[in-house]
Amino acid sequence: MRLRGRKGIREELEQQPKLVVLNPFEYKGRWREFFGNDQPLHVELGMGKGQFISGMCRKHPQSNFIGIDMYDELVRRASVKARRLPGAGPDDVLGVPPANLALVRGNIEQIGDFFADNELTCIYLNFSDPWPKIRHAKRRLTHPRLLEIYRRLLNEHGQIHQKTDSRELFEFSLNSYLEMDMKLQRISLDLHRDGIDPDRVMTEYESKFVKRGLPIYRCEVLVGEEARRGR
Amino acid sequence: MRLRGRKGIREELEQQPKLVVLNPFEYKGRWREFFGNDQPLHVELGMGKGQFISGMCRKHPQSNFIGIDMYDELVRRASVKARRLPGAGPDDVLGVPPANLALVRGNIEQIGDFFADNELTCIYLNFSDPWPKIRHAKRRLTHPRLLEIYRRLLNEHGQIHQKTDSRELFEFSLNSYLEMDMKLQRISLDLHRDGIDPDRVMTEYESKFVKRGLPIYRCEVLVGEEARRGR
Repeated sequence: MRLRGRKGIREELEQQPKLVVLNPFEYKGRWREFFGNDQPLHVELGMGKGQFISGMCRKHPQSNFIGIDMYDELVRRASVKARRLPGAGPDDVLGVPPANLALVRGNIEQIGDFFADNELTCIYLNFSDPWPKIRHAKRRLTHPRLLEIYRRLLNEHGQIHQKTDSRELFEFSLNSYLEMDMKLQRISLDLHRDGIDPDRVMTEYESKFVKRGLPIYRCEVLVGEEARRGR
Repeated sequence: MRLRGRKGIREELEQQPKLVVLNPFEYKGRWREFFGNDQPLHVELGMGKGQFISGMCRKHPQSNFIGIDMYDELVRRASVKARRLPGAGPDDVLGVPPANLALVRGNIEQIGDFFADNELTCIYLNFSDPWPKIRHAKRRLTHPRLLEIYRRLLNEHGQIHQKTDSRELFEFSLNSYLEMDMKLQRISLDLHRDGIDPDRVMTEYESKFVKRGLPIYRCEVLVGEEARRGR
């Protein structure tokens, strides 16, 4: 999507300290203080306009959710979506944001500095950029170099849940997980035909693709110590 | 394909005891006697007209190959293909069959009685019937019930190599392998785009699908003791 610069965005974000985090480094290892409780931490890397993370935090009040994206304007849009009451229309009728949600403006490359080891329970990778050129493979969010970081940040029950419309990225990802000796489960090559999506919370992209009848790929990956012991 | 009954097929098959095996039960645990050597044993379950198994046995003279199908007419066609000299046209110019090939007329459901435990090194599942109805899932050649048998028949280096054009069957198969705690590698969701087919020996079906630009799915599965120890 095209992101226009807009005056006052940064100020708008700064006025929502209970929802928007502009300096995630300061919460490394201390996210329980941000949320004021010990609930499991779920993180979406690349939340876009935030439809998925907003839906998930409402659906699972017993977990805390963090959506990360690197552009102010995306975080702003996600913050509006998060405060929009279910069923409400225009943006000026906004409610209180869910207490179990944080929206982080930050670069995914730095997540090793946003979270402490074992601090996360689940990482969502939804419709990540496929970076189709081989020379850009390292930027793919399922490159072994990043999986190594996810493994460190995830606790013993840790999982990665991935959805994508890109056959190329999905193939690359499956082989990356296998290369890292991670345990796959519930592979779907056409999610909405299978009807096995456990959460049924769609991203913006996903809604479009499904309308066009295109297949969505999905898998779950057991990353934590528990999976390794179980082998 | 439509299989017409043809007089004399059985006699034709009986006249090729060095190539065609009509009673595979008698070689259980004794295939080294049939081939006269100890080469690794590779088996294709459902060889159809035999293009793949014929190509493979010529490409890999240091292994023995067995193609299995249940209809006399398919075995007859495969036997013609196996004796046809590379580049030769009409069926009446036939050569000596490859010494490392056997064509078995038999029911795959009975392979537990065709081979002894640990007798096989590789099982090929090429374009197996997807049996799309749920109530027929047990007939799919990657149903856990059959994977259990394959695991028993495969030796410590044992692998399964699967190719299919059916997304549904491939998805089912991947999850079956995972359920059986088998180790996947080299997953391809579009084999001929990837260009990672190590053998590049195509089946009849495959040639057709590739011409039409349809994706071929492929994976390798490490089944044997070696894979289990390595985990």
